Amino acid sequence: MKIYVLRIGHRPERDKRITTHVGLVARAFGASGFILGDINDKTVVNSLRKVLETWGGTMEILAGVNSLNYIIEWKKRGGEVIHLTMYGLPVDYVVDKIRNSRKDKLIVVGAEKVPPRYYEIADYNVSIGNQPHSEVSALAVFLDRLFEGKELYKRYVKSKIEIMPQVKGKKVVAKY
Amino acid sequence: MKIYVLRIGHRPERDKRITTHVGLVARAFGASGFILGDINDKTVVNSLRKVLETWGGTMEILAGVNSLNYIIEWKKRGGEVIHLTMYGLPVDYVVDKIRNSRKDKLIVVGAEKVPPRYYEIADYNVSIGNQPHSEVSALAVFLDRLFEGKELYKRYVKSKIEIMPQVKGKKVVAKY
Repeated sequence: MKIYVLRIGHRPERDKRITTHVGLVARAFGASGFILGDINDKTVVNSLRKVLETWGGTMEILAGVNSLNYIIEWKKRGGEVIHLTMYGLPVDYVVDKIRNSRKDKLIVVGAEKVPPRYYEIADYNVSIGNQPHSEVSALAVFLDRLFEGKELYKRYVKSKIEIMPQVKGKKVVAKY
Repeated sequence: MKIYVLRIGHRPERDKRITTHVGLVARAFGASGFILGDINDKTVVNSLRKVLETWGGTMEILAGVNSLNYIIEWKKRGGEVIHLTMYGLPVDYVVDKIRNSRKDKLIVVGAEKVPPRYYEIADYNVSIGNQPHSEVSALAVFLDRLFEGKELYKRYVKSKIEIMPQVKGKKVVAKY
């Protein structure tokens, strides 16, 4: 089962750091792909690639693809589309069904206004609470629910460094 | 039991949106206070106050207080301090103990480099996975674990609008 994250509505002037954090959450919470829709923001892509180089993992990164076409293709290939929005159904009500379908999942994460088309084309519109917070936190909590907390213990192949959890201070193990 | 969030190391040029998202997560995931340490960034504070005005709730907001003094005072009054860091102990290993102490909790969330002093003064250094992601997601998942998912169903007093969860589209109820 493939879990990809599609970030839509990225505005380079405003969203560089937020979108980078969305990409980092995708990787750290177990997604295997991160797609930056409609725009190829090299700053974001390079930040993410650097993290992969150092911390490992095999997440696929793509930027500049047409978001709507990507979604349509995803569905044609039998995958399902989950749009995270504060207006959607509570995650706890739908996440078991989403997990159990075993279909590839494309998780769509918007910036400010998301066009109505995305609500319509999604198989699920899912909320992480119905209060305003952040696409970064929404994605993290959704993936945490989807993977039932196991994603936090994932090991990353080809990592150059690894952290050894400590009571105080920092312990980093270099692997090369 | 009081749960406050202290954001340290905020850099106004870089962190405006990330810090605002940290504050929104604090509110939406059940904290009753948000402290922006060492700097009074009016853009951040005003964005958060606007959200409170519209969406309700009583979260206390403070900015510009000395972070270390605030932590020291918190501990003097019998509260405990939880510093979220990718170098700390896994959240699942410590969160029950933290919840069960029933002490007031100050959750400290850093930006890039956090000075060693904070690791030492914290009662707990806690990681949400040991991979780089975001202070926004780290805070959300920590609070979600602390409140065992119940925070997503919290109602907010004095809200002017409320969302009715929908399968498709948006439904907002105005309460005034």
